[in-house]
Amino acid sequence: MKANKVLDTIKSYEAGKPIELVVREFGIAPEAVVKLASNENPKGTNPAVTKALIKSAGTAHLYPDDSMYELKEALASRYQVSDNEIIIGAGSDQVLEFISRAFLDHESKVLMSQVTFAMYEIYAKHMGATIVRTPSYEHKVDEFIAAYKEHKPKIIYICTPNNPTGDAIKKEDVLKIIDAVDKQTLIVIDGAYMEYAAAKGEEYSIEPKEILEFSNVIYLGTFSKAFGLGGMRVGYGIANPDLIKTISKLRPPFNITTLSLLAAIEALKDDSFVNDSIELHQNEIKRYELFATEHQINYIDSYTNFITYIFDREMNSTEIANAMLERGIIIRDLASYGMNAIRVTIGTAKQNDRFFEVFTEVAL
Amino acid sequence: MKANKVLDTIKSYEAGKPIELVVREFGIAPEAVVKLASNENPKGTNPAVTKALIKSAGTAHLYPDDSMYELKEALASRYQVSDNEIIIGAGSDQVLEFISRAFLDHESKVLMSQVTFAMYEIYAKHMGATIVRTPSYEHKVDEFIAAYKEHKPKIIYICTPNNPTGDAIKKEDVLKIIDAVDKQTLIVIDGAYMEYAAAKGEEYSIEPKEILEFSNVIYLGTFSKAFGLGGMRVGYGIANPDLIKTISKLRPPFNITTLSLLAAIEALKDDSFVNDSIELHQNEIKRYELFATEHQINYIDSYTNFITYIFDREMNSTEIANAMLERGIIIRDLASYGMNAIRVTIGTAKQNDRFFEVFTEVAL
Repeated sequence: MKANKVLDTIKSYEAGKPIELVVREFGIAPEAVVKLASNENPKGTNPAVTKALIKSAGTAHLYPDDSMYELKEALASRYQVSDNEIIIGAGSDQVLEFISRAFLDHESKVLMSQVTFAMYEIYAKHMGATIVRTPSYEHKVDEFIAAYKEHKPKIIYICTPNNPTGDAIKKEDVLKIIDAVDKQTLIVIDGAYMEYAAAKGEEYSIEPKEILEFSNVIYLGTFSKAFGLGGMRVGYGIANPDLIKTISKLRPPFNITTLSLLAAIEALKDDSFVNDSIELHQNEIKRYELFATEHQINYIDSYTNFITYIFDREMNSTEIANAMLERGIIIRDLASYGMNAIRVTIGTAKQNDRFFEVFTEVAL
Repeated sequence: MKANKVLDTIKSYEAGKPIELVVREFGIAPEAVVKLASNENPKGTNPAVTKALIKSAGTAHLYPDDSMYELKEALASRYQVSDNEIIIGAGSDQVLEFISRAFLDHESKVLMSQVTFAMYEIYAKHMGATIVRTPSYEHKVDEFIAAYKEHKPKIIYICTPNNPTGDAIKKEDVLKIIDAVDKQTLIVIDGAYMEYAAAKGEEYSIEPKEILEFSNVIYLGTFSKAFGLGGMRVGYGIANPDLIKTISKLRPPFNITTLSLLAAIEALKDDSFVNDSIELHQNEIKRYELFATEHQINYIDSYTNFITYIFDREMNSTEIANAMLERGIIIRDLASYGMNAIRVTIGTAKQNDRFFEVFTEVAL
């Protein structure tokens, strides 16, 4: 059968290798595998969420409330917005997909930084759109504005802090980009790691409510990182009601599982888990910075829960990542992003010990 | 901002009202609400699954294995197919979405029966395709073949047994349709309720492996009904590897939650739950048939876990459904499908008692 032509151009997202695969392929005991590849929360699942999941495990046969009334109320209250300014997706990924399908076609261009979250490109290609990238991996205001003027993209993606590099753009610079762009261009501010950036420096903190005045800006957030619910697939978009109404037309029914909904609702009740996660992170990332400095490895100053080590020519990111994988340490090789670099999730103290040990063994 | 034109034509799926909404709107205690609107399994969650979910509740922070190795192996073994003949979706709904996006455009037509699962139309409209329906709500071979010849649709949807009517088409008739159609037309056999049909009569049973020889046929199944996992959003498509490879390009990463994956894997280990669910159903549906006969109400002979009552002119499905809703009984009014009828999920003995009691009160 003849499939639509755009499918020829689509490559799939390369997920961080799961622990199960390393167990299968390398015969390593599951408890010996250290996964620092997917920016999961090293504090694990919020114990209050675990408790709620245990209590409701027997409701798996019941469809979720498709209006997501309770979760929207909780998000609205937390971020001081209205429930009609919120859309819930199976991860903020799914909101990206809705946006792409609502606004792009084969004549559209989309603009993003040189190295950024892979799904922007993938979902844009689903619609046959053309990808335009700024020269730098960081989000530089002047590069974005110049590329906007040259290409007139339909969507501009601002990933701040940026994945997989860890750098962030200041709020004032985001506002400069918004100001330079006409209202027919959608600006997506992907704040998946915003909790970490906000804790590091106020000037990097963008609150969803701050973008509501702009008809052409949407803020994305997720429960996968600081909230520790990567496996539950819950994210959200916050924007003005018209924009939310438009993209909501593409939301399939029951896109969030019953247990995911209740996990997210429970997670919002408890600030201490997020705060503790950030505190653990801030302590442990210093060790990665110190380790890099000691061994003369370049790293990108990180506003996220991971760190990116950039290697000189004598070190090869793919060889290092593979050698670590064979020893049960899963990290992310950034070769496919055009960088001789690795991205490492900041783990628990014990996991990080193991990273330093094995990295020293294979790379130094 | 200008959104894509197809969005103007999209109406959203009308989900069965959740218990929470009835509690909120009518002030009825949650335990007094009886939901017979979404064809959930009245036996609840498989206790073995509940146990597995409780054991793994603390892994909600970990992304799922995106290769879904273990679930695919389990499905492959159960249905005697290969793992490259399987795609997993967030409900079989999501596989429908992949299919629509892979094969349809604004010049395509799709063919389905007069009254059938609403998502076929919704996903086809996402792509701007034209909907063609056979005259009857049942799947009649001659009507399908005639409409195929007239309209040359890109996709033919065969929902057997059919939702929301409950009737089924015999396997020999499905094979006649497959035989009459050229290989450029995709035939989707949606077997979401197949476990119930197969238990009622062998001639209605279609096994996924039986369609693998056809390059243009895909079989869809789900964990939402007989397996009792409606809230977990896991379904699957089974077809030849080329077709699976094509639609897999549109699968977003991590489309199944970590807990959903393990729930589905666990559910496949235990046949007794499905068998018990069908036995309960077969006992209880007889009461609905008897009740209808006693009160001279027409019903459609059901091959699913629900029954459809069709009313004469003196009874109004919307009025009856609303009156029952106010009393805490949630059923599905089929007025929006052009039928003066209600669809009622066969519940537990106690839930069904309550249905008969309230129906008698409001409708007889």
